[in-house]
Amino acid sequence: MEKVKIAILGFGNVGTGVWKILLENKKEIMKRSNYEIEVTKILVKDINKKRDIAVAPGILTNNIDDIINDESIKIVVELIGGCSEAKDYMIRAMKSKKHIVTANKLAIANWSKELFKIADTENVLFYYEASVAGGIPIIREINESLTANRIEQIVGIINGTTNYILSKMTLDGSSFDEALKEAQDKGYAEADPTSDVDGYDAVYKLAIMSSLAFGTEVDHDCIYREGIRNISAVDIEYAKKFGYTIKLLAIAKEINNKLELRVHPTLIPSTHPMANVNDVYNSIMIKGNAVGELMLYGKGAGDLPTGSAVVGDIISILRNNIKPVDLTETSCTVEFKEVKKARENESEFYIRLDFKDKEGVLGDTANIFGENNVSIVSITQDVERGDHSSLAFITHKSEEKNIRNSLNKIIQLDSVNNVESIIRIESFN
Amino acid sequence: MEKVKIAILGFGNVGTGVWKILLENKKEIMKRSNYEIEVTKILVKDINKKRDIAVAPGILTNNIDDIINDESIKIVVELIGGCSEAKDYMIRAMKSKKHIVTANKLAIANWSKELFKIADTENVLFYYEASVAGGIPIIREINESLTANRIEQIVGIINGTTNYILSKMTLDGSSFDEALKEAQDKGYAEADPTSDVDGYDAVYKLAIMSSLAFGTEVDHDCIYREGIRNISAVDIEYAKKFGYTIKLLAIAKEINNKLELRVHPTLIPSTHPMANVNDVYNSIMIKGNAVGELMLYGKGAGDLPTGSAVVGDIISILRNNIKPVDLTETSCTVEFKEVKKARENESEFYIRLDFKDKEGVLGDTANIFGENNVSIVSITQDVERGDHSSLAFITHKSEEKNIRNSLNKIIQLDSVNNVESIIRIESFN
Repeated sequence: MEKVKIAILGFGNVGTGVWKILLENKKEIMKRSNYEIEVTKILVKDINKKRDIAVAPGILTNNIDDIINDESIKIVVELIGGCSEAKDYMIRAMKSKKHIVTANKLAIANWSKELFKIADTENVLFYYEASVAGGIPIIREINESLTANRIEQIVGIINGTTNYILSKMTLDGSSFDEALKEAQDKGYAEADPTSDVDGYDAVYKLAIMSSLAFGTEVDHDCIYREGIRNISAVDIEYAKKFGYTIKLLAIAKEINNKLELRVHPTLIPSTHPMANVNDVYNSIMIKGNAVGELMLYGKGAGDLPTGSAVVGDIISILRNNIKPVDLTETSCTVEFKEVKKARENESEFYIRLDFKDKEGVLGDTANIFGENNVSIVSITQDVERGDHSSLAFITHKSEEKNIRNSLNKIIQLDSVNNVESIIRIESFN
Repeated sequence: MEKVKIAILGFGNVGTGVWKILLENKKEIMKRSNYEIEVTKILVKDINKKRDIAVAPGILTNNIDDIINDESIKIVVELIGGCSEAKDYMIRAMKSKKHIVTANKLAIANWSKELFKIADTENVLFYYEASVAGGIPIIREINESLTANRIEQIVGIINGTTNYILSKMTLDGSSFDEALKEAQDKGYAEADPTSDVDGYDAVYKLAIMSSLAFGTEVDHDCIYREGIRNISAVDIEYAKKFGYTIKLLAIAKEINNKLELRVHPTLIPSTHPMANVNDVYNSIMIKGNAVGELMLYGKGAGDLPTGSAVVGDIISILRNNIKPVDLTETSCTVEFKEVKKARENESEFYIRLDFKDKEGVLGDTANIFGENNVSIVSITQDVERGDHSSLAFITHKSEEKNIRNSLNKIIQLDSVNNVESIIRIESFN
C-alpha cells in the first residue's frame, strides 16, 4: 500500500486527537483511503515540553521551514488556530503544492476568499469541515448532500460552552455564575469566557455556514450578536411555564432575497428535538425547499470529535474527492445578498416586566403594544419572587422595531419598574 | 453550459418529486453541477393516464428500450421500486454505460453485490442515497463523513409510518387501531400496512446501513424483527411514568467483533433528543469511536425529501464525485462478522404482568428474576385499569435468554394471570 506523508501544525487538544485517531483506527483508515498515512512532522512551540503522547524523535519541530521545504509532505493539517501566523503558514504550504486541512474558523471566516483563491491557483485541495461544529459534518452536508435544495434557513446550537451553561441553568437550576464556574472547572469554558459567552464564536461559525448555504459572502460583522450573560433563572422558569426552553441560537434565514443573520438567546418549543440538546452538544437544523427540515446533532468540540472531522478531510483528499465548493462562489458568481438590519427582523418575543401597580400595568401595556402593532399571545404572572412582581408576555410575530418602540414607552409607565428581559422566540416554522 | 440528458423510470410520488425539484431549483442545480439537466424520457406503465404534471409530448414512454437504446441518455434514475423488473432495468442501463441513481431499498438490500459488481465492470457510478431514510443523507454520512471512525452503533427511527402511529398514541392517547386508521387516511400507511407495521421496511434499511457501517455483508433475514401491533396505551402510560417514550428502533451494534441487529419497539429515555422525534420524521444516531454520538433528523419519505436525495445523487455524478464505497467492500475485503442470536443480545427490559394475588406476586417474581440473574431497577403498579391489576418492572441490562427463562417460570405462577408486555430499552450508552 502506498504511503503518504503529512504534517500537523499545532499539537494541542485537536492535534493530539488527530494523532490518536490515526493510530487507533489505522486499519480502517487504510482500507478507506487506500493509503498508509505517516505523520512525519509536527510543528510545536517548544519541542522539549513534557507531553502525554510519545512521539518518535525528529518528528517534533519548531521550525515551519522543515515542513514547507519538505517536498515529501503532501498534506498540511493546520491546527494552530486563530492567528494570522496560521494563515501565513497555510499560504506558504499551498504555494509549496501541499493540500490543506484546517479546523480554523477564524481563518475561514476572515480570509476564506484569499485562501481559496490561492488553493485554486496552486491547484491544491483546501478542506475545513472541522472549522464549524467539530464532529458534525455540516460543511459536507451543505456542499454535497443538499445540493438539490434552495436553502431557506439554518438554525443551530453551535457553541458548546453556552449550551452547557444554559443546560445547567435549565436542568439543575444553577445561576449563570455557578454554571459558568462549573464549565470553567471542567475545561469547557476559558478563563476569559467572552468569545463563547458573548456569542462571538457562534458568529464566526454562522458566517461560514451562511456564506456556503446562500452562495454569498457574509461579513461576520454584519451578524447581530447577543450573549447569554443576562439570562436569569426567572426567565428560564417563565419560559418553561410557556412551554419553551432557552438556548443560544445562531439563525440565518433568506427571506425575499434578503438575509436575516443573528446570534442570541432564544426560546424554543420544549417539544422540538433541539430543546433536548444539552451539555456541550451542538445541533444544526437546515431547512431546504426540497428536503424540508434536516437536523444534525453531535459533539461540537473536543479532541476526538474535531479530530474525526479533520481525519475525514484527510481521507477525502486521499480519495481525491471533489474539490469543495468555494465559500464565496458556488460555481461561478457570488450573489450579493443584503443583510437586514436587526430592527427589521421578525420574531415572536418573550418580554418580562417588573411592575409596581398591579391594577394599572395590564391595561397600560396592552394599549401600548396595540398602538405599535404588537399583538400578545399570552401573559402570565405565576412566578413569584419575594417583593418583586413580574409579568411575562409572549407576542405574535412582530418586527423588532415595533417591539423596541413599545418597550421605550412601557418603561416610562408609572405602573412599571423595569423591562427585565427581551428574548426572541424561534418556532421553526 | 453543457447539457446532460437523463431518464426517469417510474413517475409516481418520488418521480414527480424529482421532476418538480429539477424544475423549481433549476438555477441552483446548474450552478452546483455545471450542467443543464434535461429529462428526455420517463418510463411509465400508461402514457395516457391523466397526471397533475404536464410533461411535453414524446417524453413519456412505456418501452424501456427507448431509454436503454438511447445513447444520448447518460444517467438513469430508477424509481419503480421493489421488483425484479427494476433490477433488470438497472443492469441493462449499466451495460449500456449509463450511470444509475436509485431509491430502491429492496434492490440494494437484496442484490447489492451483483449490482455493484456490474457498475464496477461497466465503469459507471451507482448511487442510492434515497434508498434509506429519504431526505436524510445517511449513506454519504457513513461512506464519506465518518471515514475516520470505527462505527460502533447505529440506532434509528427509520420508518415514518410506525413513528406516526406511536406519536399519535403517545401524544394524543389514540389506540393502535385509531392511529393506524389515521395514518392510512393521511396516506402515510398502506391499505395493507404489514411492511411498515411489522418492521420489514426498517429491516431492509438496517441491512443496508449496517453493511456499510461495519464493512460486512448483512443478510436481512438475520435481523431480529418485531413490529408495533402489540403496543398498548397502558404500556405507553407506564413507560411515561418510568421516564421513557416508546419508539420503533432499528439497532445495529458491533460488540467484540459480533453484530447485534434488531428492529423492535423500544423504550428510550424521554430526555434523549430522539424521544421528541415525532410524526413521520426519521432520526438516526451513529456512534463512532472518534466522533461519539452523531444524530441526524429529517423527513424519511415523501416526494420532495426523497427527491432531494435523488437529485443530490444526480448532481454528485455530474460533479464526478468519488465512486461510492461498495456495500460489501470498504475497499478490498469484506470481513465476515457473526450476527448474534437474539437470545444472546443484551438490553434493559420493561416487563408488564397482569396479576391476581397482590400479596404473593412481588416475592414470587423477585425470586425467579433473581435465580435467573435478572436484577430489577424499579417496579411500579401505579396505572389502574378497571378490574385488572398490573405490575411493571424495569430491569438492569440482561441477556435475553435470562429474561425468557424468567418469564417462562413467572407465567406459571399462581399469583400471575399473564405476561402482557416485554419491551426492550435503549439507553444510548
